Amino acid sequence: MTFTFVTLFQSIVEGYFSDSILNRAIEKDIIELSYLNPRDYSSNKHNKVDDTAVGGGAGMVMNPQPLYDCLADLKNKDENVHIVFLTPVAKQFNQNDAKRLAKKSHIAFVSGRYEGIDERVIEKYADEVFSIGDYILTGGELPSMVMCDAISRNVDGVLGNSESLDIESFETPLLEAPSFSKPANYENNFVPKEYLKGNHSKIRSLKIALSECKSKFFRPEQLKKHIIRTSYEK
Amino acid sequence: MTFTFVTLFQSIVEGYFSDSILNRAIEKDIIELSYLNPRDYSSNKHNKVDDTAVGGGAGMVMNPQPLYDCLADLKNKDENVHIVFLTPVAKQFNQNDAKRLAKKSHIAFVSGRYEGIDERVIEKYADEVFSIGDYILTGGELPSMVMCDAISRNVDGVLGNSESLDIESFETPLLEAPSFSKPANYENNFVPKEYLKGNHSKIRSLKIALSECKSKFFRPEQLKKHIIRTSYEK
Repeated sequence: MTFTFVTLFQSIVEGYFSDSILNRAIEKDIIELSYLNPRDYSSNKHNKVDDTAVGGGAGMVMNPQPLYDCLADLKNKDENVHIVFLTPVAKQFNQNDAKRLAKKSHIAFVSGRYEGIDERVIEKYADEVFSIGDYILTGGELPSMVMCDAISRNVDGVLGNSESLDIESFETPLLEAPSFSKPANYENNFVPKEYLKGNHSKIRSLKIALSECKSKFFRPEQLKKHIIRTSYEK
Repeated sequence: MTFTFVTLFQSIVEGYFSDSILNRAIEKDIIELSYLNPRDYSSNKHNKVDDTAVGGGAGMVMNPQPLYDCLADLKNKDENVHIVFLTPVAKQFNQNDAKRLAKKSHIAFVSGRYEGIDERVIEKYADEVFSIGDYILTGGELPSMVMCDAISRNVDGVLGNSESLDIESFETPLLEAPSFSKPANYENNFVPKEYLKGNHSKIRSLKIALSECKSKFFRPEQLKKHIIRTSYEK
């Protein structure tokens, strides 16, 4: 699977893929990354990519020309590329999107900077637009990296034996139960006794109770939508 | 303001701060970054930091010892450090949190990897726990970077003249209106005529109408909570 980052700042993106799980997936040729810089497509003699906003307002807006030419080139080279724009004015990305998009052969993430991207570019080229959450960032690069990471985990072969796709938060309506490792007593802080006794049905019941407790506290509205507990017990 | 990243993978974090707005803020000494690796605190002879989960379940869990010692050292050096754990089992981070946390002198982000962090560490050391959205990532590093970026934007002096904190999505109940730049006609795609005529009260009305339209489409539930339009017109 190929991910193309369309960004003015390749250097702030590529370091993230230099180690750990995603680096292994790149070395195994399961995922491939490429980068396109809109500035390389600018027809302006100073390679400008932005200008003041039409209609007033603070800040600079990314011009149509460099992005039109950059994205036309991308689509010309691979007509199946799925183009995603990262903008706060969009649907919120979630785990179902991550699974769905893991089936694409090629996804391009277009990152805005400054006050955003001229709307005409989005209207012409976006297959989808996403926000990763209700907060404001300095650009679309981090949201691109977040989507790439979440999608990659769902591509066959990316997760090794030490990681797992089973029963995780957002794969079920409930948040995950707490995890504990060794030792059972660390400086007088104890793992819950039931976790240690090896009775798997009791451990399972306790984990579900703890999941419900965490979910009630952190996601009360989400929990109301999914009160059928059996959907967790897949 | 200081941000400390507590992570096993410093190299995947630091590249993000090598260019653009946040790099300028670092060079101007407005923000300062530091890194701590729990592996450097491991008392295990192979510097192990994880072990199998107690009570069963796939995957490895980060042990208490390296993190206890690492975070004790951190608090010992700066008792005012505000320790944030990134985990999917948490409140969702939002723009109000970004503004609130921008007033702290020192924030440490603790990133989990593998199946997560032993719950005892979180109970002992967390000042707050956050999730950045309902999707699963390979670790807490990207959420740390997202929070650091969103918080930094609200620290005095980080945004230059070309960026702006005024009227942005999530600063108001409505999502932002579309932005347009020059030229007004690009390959027969036109900027809305009203944007060009210079009548600022008409432009303002159109922008509010477009904001409402985008918000109804992308955030219908959020909009219902904030029907008093005047809160936008600050």
